[in-house]
Amino acid sequence: MRKSLCFLLLFLSVFLFAAEPVFYDAQLYLEGMAFEDAPPFSRLPAVAEDLLRKPVWNLSRNSAGVAAHFITDATEIHIQWEVLNNFHMVHMAGTGIRGLDLYVKEGKQWFHLGTGKPYQAGNKRRLIKNLTAEPREYLLYCPLYDGLKSLYIGINPEAEITEIKRSEKPLVFYGTSITQGGCVSRPGMAYPAIIGRNLERETINLGFSGNGHMDPEIINYICQIDAACYIFDCFPNMDLEMIKDRTERELKKLLEAHPKTPVLLTPNIMEEDGWFDPEIYNACMAENAEVAAIYERLKKDYKNLHMIPFKQIRHVAVEGTVDGIHLTDLGSMRMAEVMGKWIKRCF
Amino acid sequence: MRKSLCFLLLFLSVFLFAAEPVFYDAQLYLEGMAFEDAPPFSRLPAVAEDLLRKPVWNLSRNSAGVAAHFITDATEIHIQWEVLNNFHMVHMAGTGIRGLDLYVKEGKQWFHLGTGKPYQAGNKRRLIKNLTAEPREYLLYCPLYDGLKSLYIGINPEAEITEIKRSEKPLVFYGTSITQGGCVSRPGMAYPAIIGRNLERETINLGFSGNGHMDPEIINYICQIDAACYIFDCFPNMDLEMIKDRTERELKKLLEAHPKTPVLLTPNIMEEDGWFDPEIYNACMAENAEVAAIYERLKKDYKNLHMIPFKQIRHVAVEGTVDGIHLTDLGSMRMAEVMGKWIKRCF
Repeated sequence: MRKSLCFLLLFLSVFLFAAEPVFYDAQLYLEGMAFEDAPPFSRLPAVAEDLLRKPVWNLSRNSAGVAAHFITDATEIHIQWEVLNNFHMVHMAGTGIRGLDLYVKEGKQWFHLGTGKPYQAGNKRRLIKNLTAEPREYLLYCPLYDGLKSLYIGINPEAEITEIKRSEKPLVFYGTSITQGGCVSRPGMAYPAIIGRNLERETINLGFSGNGHMDPEIINYICQIDAACYIFDCFPNMDLEMIKDRTERELKKLLEAHPKTPVLLTPNIMEEDGWFDPEIYNACMAENAEVAAIYERLKKDYKNLHMIPFKQIRHVAVEGTVDGIHLTDLGSMRMAEVMGKWIKRCF
Repeated sequence: MRKSLCFLLLFLSVFLFAAEPVFYDAQLYLEGMAFEDAPPFSRLPAVAEDLLRKPVWNLSRNSAGVAAHFITDATEIHIQWEVLNNFHMVHMAGTGIRGLDLYVKEGKQWFHLGTGKPYQAGNKRRLIKNLTAEPREYLLYCPLYDGLKSLYIGINPEAEITEIKRSEKPLVFYGTSITQGGCVSRPGMAYPAIIGRNLERETINLGFSGNGHMDPEIINYICQIDAACYIFDCFPNMDLEMIKDRTERELKKLLEAHPKTPVLLTPNIMEEDGWFDPEIYNACMAENAEVAAIYERLKKDYKNLHMIPFKQIRHVAVEGTVDGIHLTDLGSMRMAEVMGKWIKRCF
């Protein structure tokens, strides 16, 4: 009797403990961070804090574009994370601002598998269960408009998890709130993330909400990154004077530092009310004309400079934004389609 | 001196008062409400409160599908609104839950023109300025997951505003949270709203989050509506037993009450993790098989019954949801494309 009780307890304990996932620090598997001496899950090196404007530094702590990239044969995947600011916005879902987003690769296609909903600053959640125990490639995208104190990936104890290192150089995106992912529903739908999956490249997201000002200090940091392509989508944050003042000078620095690497310029998309409000339309087109003029001047000397014509992105925002300017999943998917084609053409 | 001061004051007062918009009660211009004796901006008659399950009644106070439909030659449009619950969800933007959404028709196409961001329970906001003073047709969509205490439309004093009455019967959608608009970025992106614009029809949104249970009382109310087409997308809220128990009986009531009006069934979309978790896949397909069997039995007697085949909507949710099941603007647009084609085919 006592013996069979022992067996029962042993059986139950194995069964119960087997059900508990084992958690691994996601920092072992990260990509999308260009600088080794950056704070955890952050986008610029710690020393940049003293060099940059305060809002740019603060935004660099948002984990946009940072993702855990790994292989596991797990049958279930859990996550546990704590955000830095518990930030909220009225025109973007919490899942996009401070949630996690899991994708899995099956054959040659990436599939959205689960979303970590951020009910409070610290959250724990199972994202998927009942998987067959085969090794699969995953991307777990970090919050777009918040930072992370910690992130752990939990798998069933029998499973293994391994980092994936890419052999190819990353794509570097410099831009605005839209580049940072405003206002998609979850981190994997930011257009740099979509392009990264479609082109099978690591992406570095240097979108800084409201602050894509071509600050010389930021361009200096971009020059330090060995990239496959540099994509500039910062003009919606720059007025005409700022475009005239900074664009040519700052682009030249990059074009000369990396003469064989393509640099792709994206003009302003048209705000949705711009088709009805001439003031908005004219401001947008004047800026785009200035960007085009700078492009025409520079491309004579720099064959690695490219620009997407405005007419190819004029449809992107139409019904594709939440507020006239910030792309939803619909607009973001359209932007990724156009931009992805241009990046491939630049290679 | 005193005289010229008088003139100056007169001039300034005319100028200042001219800049102030005149506000009109949006209740003068509403569509999307099938029942005249409903509470303000609500979807079911006041007497239904005693007949319905409490959650269904509460959800009927959400203004999903309610829209002001008007013509104005305004050069600027303002709105002022107060919501009922100031409701928040972590996986849907506040603009979709409790915001307002303005569309304008130009030629034959509808354009998104402006979004009312709900920073608190009561909000006032200019949505568009600098319009040419021509009469245009507008739709101002009300919150999807909150109700309204009040809504006023402000236009420049010289402008006029007139209600638009449609001559054609409305499309009636009965369903779940997805039908209600979960989780699009703003009210105009709920799939019934997109279909309404594409087919130029009034739409009645009877999506009840988590509660699309084919309650007999709700079907009785649907029978009272004289519609161009009834669309059922409620099965994601019904388990297999509930589908077996209620679908045939409740559909028969409607099919016999309106023998010449098309009734269109939509099977379950597949949750995104269903392609990897057999438990979810099998539950979805078993329910869809049951729905298909009921459809096959009923269509022998009721020629006005139609069903969208699952294979035509299997792509809708793929990368098109925020959390595996609730459609984003991307998924909602896809659903509207497929469903819109089927509705046109049914006419």
